[in-house]
Amino acid sequence: MASKNYYDVTEWPVGNPYEDIGEVINSIIADIKSRQTDTDVNNGGKPGAVIYIPPGDYHLGSQVVIDISFLKIMGSGHGFTSSSIRFNTPEEEWADLHELWPGGSRILVDIPLEEQDEEYKGAAFYIERSGNPRLSSVEFSNFCIDGLHFKDDGTGETTPENSYTNGKTGIYVGSACDSFRITEMGLVYLEHGMAIYHADALTIHDNFIAECGNCIELRGWGQASKITDNLIGAGFKGYSIYAQNFGGLLITANNVFPRGASSIYFDGVTRSSITNNRLHSFYPGMVVFKENCSENLVSSNHFLRDHEPWTPFLGIDNGLDDLYGLLNISGNNNTVIANHFSKIVNTDNIKPVGATPVIIRVVSGNGNYISNNHMVATNVDAKTSDSCFSAQVDALLTTEASEQLIVTTVLVEKESLQNTILDSGSDVQVVMDKTVNAFRATPMPGA
Amino acid sequence: MASKNYYDVTEWPVGNPYEDIGEVINSIIADIKSRQTDTDVNNGGKPGAVIYIPPGDYHLGSQVVIDISFLKIMGSGHGFTSSSIRFNTPEEEWADLHELWPGGSRILVDIPLEEQDEEYKGAAFYIERSGNPRLSSVEFSNFCIDGLHFKDDGTGETTPENSYTNGKTGIYVGSACDSFRITEMGLVYLEHGMAIYHADALTIHDNFIAECGNCIELRGWGQASKITDNLIGAGFKGYSIYAQNFGGLLITANNVFPRGASSIYFDGVTRSSITNNRLHSFYPGMVVFKENCSENLVSSNHFLRDHEPWTPFLGIDNGLDDLYGLLNISGNNNTVIANHFSKIVNTDNIKPVGATPVIIRVVSGNGNYISNNHMVATNVDAKTSDSCFSAQVDALLTTEASEQLIVTTVLVEKESLQNTILDSGSDVQVVMDKTVNAFRATPMPGA
Amino acid sequence: MASKNYYDVTEWPVGNPYEDIGEVINSIIADIKSRQTDTDVNNGGKPGAVIYIPPGDYHLGSQVVIDISFLKIMGSGHGFTSSSIRFNTPEEEWADLHELWPGGSRILVDIPLEEQDEEYKGAAFYIERSGNPRLSSVEFSNFCIDGLHFKDDGTGETTPENSYTNGKTGIYVGSACDSFRITEMGLVYLEHGMAIYHADALTIHDNFIAECGNCIELRGWGQASKITDNLIGAGFKGYSIYAQNFGGLLITANNVFPRGASSIYFDGVTRSSITNNRLHSFYPGMVVFKENCSENLVSSNHFLRDHEPWTPFLGIDNGLDDLYGLLNISGNNNTVIANHFSKIVNTDNIKPVGATPVIIRVVSGNGNYISNNHMVATNVDAKTSDSCFSAQVDALLTTEASEQLIVTTVLVEKESLQNTILDSGSDVQVVMDKTVNAFRATPMPGA
Repeated sequence: MASKNYYDVTEWPVGNPYEDIGEVINSIIADIKSRQTDTDVNNGGKPGAVIYIPPGDYHLGSQVVIDISFLKIMGSGHGFTSSSIRFNTPEEEWADLHELWPGGSRILVDIPLEEQDEEYKGAAFYIERSGNPRLSSVEFSNFCIDGLHFKDDGTGETTPENSYTNGKTGIYVGSACDSFRITEMGLVYLEHGMAIYHADALTIHDNFIAECGNCIELRGWGQASKITDNLIGAGFKGYSIYAQNFGGLLITANNVFPRGASSIYFDGVTRSSITNNRLHSFYPGMVVFKENCSENLVSSNHFLRDHEPWTPFLGIDNGLDDLYGLLNISGNNNTVIANHFSKIVNTDNIKPVGATPVIIRVVSGNGNYISNNHMVATNVDAKTSDSCFSAQVDALLTTEASEQLIVTTVLVEKESLQNTILDSGSDVQVVMDKTVNAFRATPMPGA
Repeated sequence: MASKNYYDVTEWPVGNPYEDIGEVINSIIADIKSRQTDTDVNNGGKPGAVIYIPPGDYHLGSQVVIDISFLKIMGSGHGFTSSSIRFNTPEEEWADLHELWPGGSRILVDIPLEEQDEEYKGAAFYIERSGNPRLSSVEFSNFCIDGLHFKDDGTGETTPENSYTNGKTGIYVGSACDSFRITEMGLVYLEHGMAIYHADALTIHDNFIAECGNCIELRGWGQASKITDNLIGAGFKGYSIYAQNFGGLLITANNVFPRGASSIYFDGVTRSSITNNRLHSFYPGMVVFKENCSENLVSSNHFLRDHEPWTPFLGIDNGLDDLYGLLNISGNNNTVIANHFSKIVNTDNIKPVGATPVIIRVVSGNGNYISNNHMVATNVDAKTSDSCFSAQVDALLTTEASEQLIVTTVLVEKESLQNTILDSGSDVQVVMDKTVNAFRATPMPGA
Repeated sequence: MASKNYYDVTEWPVGNPYEDIGEVINSIIADIKSRQTDTDVNNGGKPGAVIYIPPGDYHLGSQVVIDISFLKIMGSGHGFTSSSIRFNTPEEEWADLHELWPGGSRILVDIPLEEQDEEYKGAAFYIERSGNPRLSSVEFSNFCIDGLHFKDDGTGETTPENSYTNGKTGIYVGSACDSFRITEMGLVYLEHGMAIYHADALTIHDNFIAECGNCIELRGWGQASKITDNLIGAGFKGYSIYAQNFGGLLITANNVFPRGASSIYFDGVTRSSITNNRLHSFYPGMVVFKENCSENLVSSNHFLRDHEPWTPFLGIDNGLDDLYGLLNISGNNNTVIANHFSKIVNTDNIKPVGATPVIIRVVSGNGNYISNNHMVATNVDAKTSDSCFSAQVDALLTTEASEQLIVTTVLVEKESLQNTILDSGSDVQVVMDKTVNAFRATPMPGA
């Protein structure tokens, strides 16, 4: 009577999981479908299954295609280690390293790709089904998806392993999905960590998604989901978190570290929350609201923007200047309360030269409420180092002997009206038409 | 030497788990008790056990009775899918559906019930023990409890499968409990998802609890617990989260979707936090504080109240009118800061006809501090649809071309004194006796 | 082909896990190292392994030493129960108790210790490696580490089992670590729950760490980590959460209960967040910022300080008086917004006698922004009880019939300048030099 719905990839008779785990998992899925054929047997019939991946190095040459609900794929180890640090270590030191590669229950994405392939073809896991109902309750838990290498992107701007480009995606959901869970995963060196279309009641919780071109992309449209308690950090070309036409998204308790072009990018997102995150970036445009993002809440977040301290990425940025704002808003009736902003830069690096940097910039839309935000801005001598970790820790801990930097705490453009700006800067620091927006200056200390 | 404390329900010799998993689990618990008899064997003796439920459809005819500590019951799949959508799909379309039922490690609650049975008799899992110590560290993880059907509730208001009534409970804790954990579960189509008495240091984390009459009920009294990072949505008769006489409860990072009568209902709760949640409802009374709820913190939440867009539930509500408030407070010294409220309704649907809707209503109690909340209220043409998902997404994403709705942002009744209301509405929008309460109007933009 | 990287301690041929699980795990680690020797075999080579500990009582006489990456150690049960309640129950009642000891997958720390042993020698798990890279992705999940007994600390202040002293540590990380995970653990009766040096991208999530001398200590320096969603409560001598020279730490969604000397203690911590926690303490100094802690965010927290209600610990405190502040800040440019503070004490117990208690005290540093905090202070008749649980619940739920206590809501010392204090107390309640700090009084209600 022992369950047939529990599979171990190392015990399945078809294929060799170390050579091509994709073939093995596809064979298991075919087995599940061949056994679970009837939709209504005594009030059940298609309970799905679990596929277990013990710790090990598993090459994936064949894309896994998932078109059944209630499939759980789980490992015992998210296996993240920094490939970026390793690839930027001089090769003569590699022999002395204890280990070179990520580990845990680790999938090495070896899918052969052509230049002109559609994006989804580079996905290790491709989830798609037409018809009804939407796929439900597919779960990914506690394994590692490693894209192995980045490659020359043709720009010549960086060495190939620093390009964040390889055409690979960890998890790609191409059709509408409901109640999916992605938890305790480790994603590394993928151009797209996960790209998910049309999500409903999605959980992305407690993952480690770093050194990817983009980390989390919610595309198309969707609703009522959460991105919570993750460690996330995209590359300079992409987004740590991206959402499109989404309603009711809760982004909270994430620690988003550099060097994503944006920590969070919203495109037409409404009635969602960005609360209680720690956001750290090396560029402006940390949080961006594009295309009429409305009625969103941004509160209790810690924003830190400072300089890239690690030698291999010096001189690289996301192309935005210091007038763009750390938080850039297009849309109506958003709420921005009780955030801390630190802007720690060297005056010499400010773009355009001589500009007064902007912390919050409201580009368009009416009725935004921006209240009780604390902006700290200081001028530092940026230090750099060949050691990724110590460079960053040193920079983070340096708060003394710094000179105050003059900033515009809030800039409201002329296209935007009827906003309310309270206790978020002095009369000089808040730049807007104060006859068409409401304003109360933060009281300033005496000398 | 292989452990005897690991059980797989599909490998246990007593009973058939597919026919009655209750009999199997009760037999396993009896085995644990027969083996772990001595309370002090070399500083141990009663470590408990784990019972594993692989993915599959398991009928439960016999109630599981748990009276030992340190029992973990776990599956590999929360298995949620929307039964509500399925039951409201025309039956002629069922043949084309990929699957009809929830899945994962799924328990089908088939307990035979009589009309006059006590509530606990309808529980799939009944936890109870007298004497000392309290039961500790029972854990439920990553399986599905499915109540299968709702039934005619005699009101004739809805079709039976939409009644949220069937007398069934997923997890019922009848005596004091300590350090319990309920995580990664899927609960669906139960009248009560979980009802827990006298909880201490309880963790309810990262579950999916929806399409239940009530989702989470903490009853009697309790302390120092957390309800975090869940996806929750009760039916129109019940509560998504309910707590009674509780101190030190932390409710955070939950995404609570419609259509619960209340998203969160506190009855005599003190010194607790509702912070950083996304709350969405179709009715007033989203968060209610009854019976002297005091010294609680409500901050950084996103409240959205709009209209039911899905055809099968049109015309149904929780009986409260628009003067009740989205947040309704009875009690002293509560703190309400930095929340966003959106009220998106059609003027024609406001009750009583012609009334000015209320966002926050303070009914009684003194010393409440309500500060820096942003209220957005617009009049929309409510649209409805036969498709649950697309109807809701469409409604969520519609923010344009809407006309501002006149509301009372804060109403303090005469029985309530010495409150402080700051930056939460204009002089007209905040209705109270301003001689006995403190007030500062939000500065208003010019024309 | 079945995986060799999955180990069950009860099935390993070397040692007896019930007598000394340390010997067994060390033997397994040696096996992993003997099998995984090459750092670069087909882009892999050292994936690590998982070691499973089924529920049971496992004595640990030999310290486990971990010097490999990608090792996961996991159980099926965090197994917490209150040893404190048991040891303070009269011994004649023990025979009637259902169980005496914690359970789950439980490790009993029996390491023989000498008085003069270095601290790390008392650790059940000691993680250390020199060279590069840092150890990565070691994971601990869902088991119990029990220190069994506290012992006479020579002070005579408490009975030995209440001393929180025994020289034992659960998890001790002695060298730099990256992407470690500690989740779903239960730690009890250890002098140090976990002490971790030089952490990067650390996850401490969803654990139960209580009745330990100190719960979580992040030492040395570190960055970009999270302590989230834990239930925590240290002893009166130590810290529930301690961090040293850390940048980018996110502490959120924790429920920290008494009786730690501090709930959270920061030593030279910068650009970090304490947001959205529930903090409860019996002493002042709940949250302390020492040694120039700068640019940190403290928001949306619930602070409750009341009196010890449980007989065995009456008269014990952390040595701080009521002028110290519940939140005590040394440092620059910190942000404190939207917190609730309740101070519920008996006037007769205030130290120094007749003093006006302080809620927030800024000791040194400039540019702190303290805004929109709500302070509630009442004088109560403290009640005590022999029953730990009911004493605390009674105290928590008592909010009525209490008399208001006069407090200083914010005290800024003369050494600290250029701070901004808004809506956090009346002109009388905020004590500072208002010519060198900015101030706006909370509007006060009329009589």
